[in-house]
Amino acid sequence: MDDASAAQALTARQVPAKTLKVPVTVSPELQRSISNLAAAPRLSADQMPSTPEAWKAFVAVADSQAAALAPILASIFPHTVNLTTIAGVTVREITPASLDPAKAGKVLINFHGGGYVLNGGEASTGEAVLGAHYSGMKVISVDYRMAPDHPYPAAVEDAVAVWKAVTATQAPGSVGVFGTSAGGGLSLALVLKLKQLGLALPGALALGTPWADLTGASDSYAVNAEVDGIFTSFDTMGQAMAAVYAGPAGVTDPLISPIFGDYAGFPPAIVTTGTRDILLSDSVRVYRKMRDAGVTARLEVHEAMSHAEYIYAFDSPESATAFRDIAAFFDAHLQG
Amino acid sequence: MDDASAAQALTARQVPAKTLKVPVTVSPELQRSISNLAAAPRLSADQMPSTPEAWKAFVAVADSQAAALAPILASIFPHTVNLTTIAGVTVREITPASLDPAKAGKVLINFHGGGYVLNGGEASTGEAVLGAHYSGMKVISVDYRMAPDHPYPAAVEDAVAVWKAVTATQAPGSVGVFGTSAGGGLSLALVLKLKQLGLALPGALALGTPWADLTGASDSYAVNAEVDGIFTSFDTMGQAMAAVYAGPAGVTDPLISPIFGDYAGFPPAIVTTGTRDILLSDSVRVYRKMRDAGVTARLEVHEAMSHAEYIYAFDSPESATAFRDIAAFFDAHLQG
Repeated sequence: MDDASAAQALTARQVPAKTLKVPVTVSPELQRSISNLAAAPRLSADQMPSTPEAWKAFVAVADSQAAALAPILASIFPHTVNLTTIAGVTVREITPASLDPAKAGKVLINFHGGGYVLNGGEASTGEAVLGAHYSGMKVISVDYRMAPDHPYPAAVEDAVAVWKAVTATQAPGSVGVFGTSAGGGLSLALVLKLKQLGLALPGALALGTPWADLTGASDSYAVNAEVDGIFTSFDTMGQAMAAVYAGPAGVTDPLISPIFGDYAGFPPAIVTTGTRDILLSDSVRVYRKMRDAGVTARLEVHEAMSHAEYIYAFDSPESATAFRDIAAFFDAHLQG
Repeated sequence: MDDASAAQALTARQVPAKTLKVPVTVSPELQRSISNLAAAPRLSADQMPSTPEAWKAFVAVADSQAAALAPILASIFPHTVNLTTIAGVTVREITPASLDPAKAGKVLINFHGGGYVLNGGEASTGEAVLGAHYSGMKVISVDYRMAPDHPYPAAVEDAVAVWKAVTATQAPGSVGVFGTSAGGGLSLALVLKLKQLGLALPGALALGTPWADLTGASDSYAVNAEVDGIFTSFDTMGQAMAAVYAGPAGVTDPLISPIFGDYAGFPPAIVTTGTRDILLSDSVRVYRKMRDAGVTARLEVHEAMSHAEYIYAFDSPESATAFRDIAAFFDAHLQG
């Protein structure tokens, strides 16, 4: 009997409906974020797009909202943006006002989140700006190609292309790679692909609640469904995005669902998640696989945080803590 | 407006009832444990004891079940038990068959879990046996006094008495302290008390899903209520045990709810929990307080594990991993 059929013979757990008060155990800023998420309307499965045209309309609305955050972020975390291309891939080089000359030999590459569908273009730089601010390093924010027009392997190809170009002039060990959600998954896929290609690896990784299992098997997809205020349900958003991104390659390919990859030889990694995060299990499973493979890894779990909330609740001390931990991890592990 | 009244003005989150299948993302052994917990009857609040006599009857049944595990554990994890007293406190010295002569200069002290009410006497050694087996070290399992006959501060007094006696002949830095649930909380309370007394601290701590907030404010008390298969609800078991243990001292005393303590100067600590753990938030909040205080700390979160399940699912590879991580942490940080 394989694992799947064994599980079918086992007893499922019934959990009653519940009301989650905004906890007093987090900062007032994070409380406000949690409350706002609770008050937001929720998508149902039948509201998810099912054609390329419907996806584009869906994406246009979401991305315009995300892009509207950019000037607010810029006022709090001042920086300059240099829109350019690297190896034919659109990137935005973020140089923070906090740039630390002592770290001039190092650089970070960021892959934004958004389920390989959302947060392209002007919407792509939120996490990169925060990472640049707290690290005092330049961040190359990669506007990789996405579904529905460019499903897998376009994103991985773009990631590899940027990596090769950056490391043509920069020691690989001095380059840190970070990303949240799909950006965390893509960071993992990049390293798996670099291993296949026999190329040098980044000096360190910061994986923010990485989307590592697009099959939906992680336990937190069930436990934290509708608990998470941002990625509220795998059955609606997650499954639709996984299908449109994976296409015929299927969601069990390790370059699509990197939980199935081999983590031997991976660079040091810090994994960040929250107790309400629907990808809590993806995060702890990735972390555990790394530890089992002998990788230097650190796990950070934030009280009552939903998926990627440290990006959106950027005024909260918890967000600052998350990014300071990431910055310190890069300081400790990047060469140069 | 203080935090509590601010929270009242915020929007609570509604989460529908759900069915949690046994996940395929864990070992068959842990799947079996999760299934067994799902099939077990659940206590309601009106089944909790409210008088000392009712508590004793409740405890007698639970402890006889826990004690029945001892011979099974002994067959898998062979060891000898020396029942004795240290400073007038009943202890059981566990010497594992795996005793490593290279670690003869080190010793571990274990405080069992059970909400400061359960797991006294013959029921007290489960975690100690596993810790001894995986570490190859002798473990002093402390059968500290408990409620209802001996509420706070009896447990803390016993912990301090044993600590003083052990460190009269043993370098404090060569002694590791570990415990789960109330035993994790008591480990924290011991160190807070030792700081007050100006005494030397242990070389390292291993805190298994520590019961650190007896006020019930942790977010996971709500999120993981009825999700956790072992500590299923704070409102039933937790609140009743907190009340009978704390007594007139009240649950906000840092020696009772160590989340309110000052962690400056704490020894290195490893914190172990699971994604279904009702004390997930207690665990991550303790870990975060330690990191904010500059303490060397490591967080381990296991997929789909309920509260303390690594003790009860002792045949699972996840349990072995949890205890091997703890043993490695003691190896890295204990002197001698």
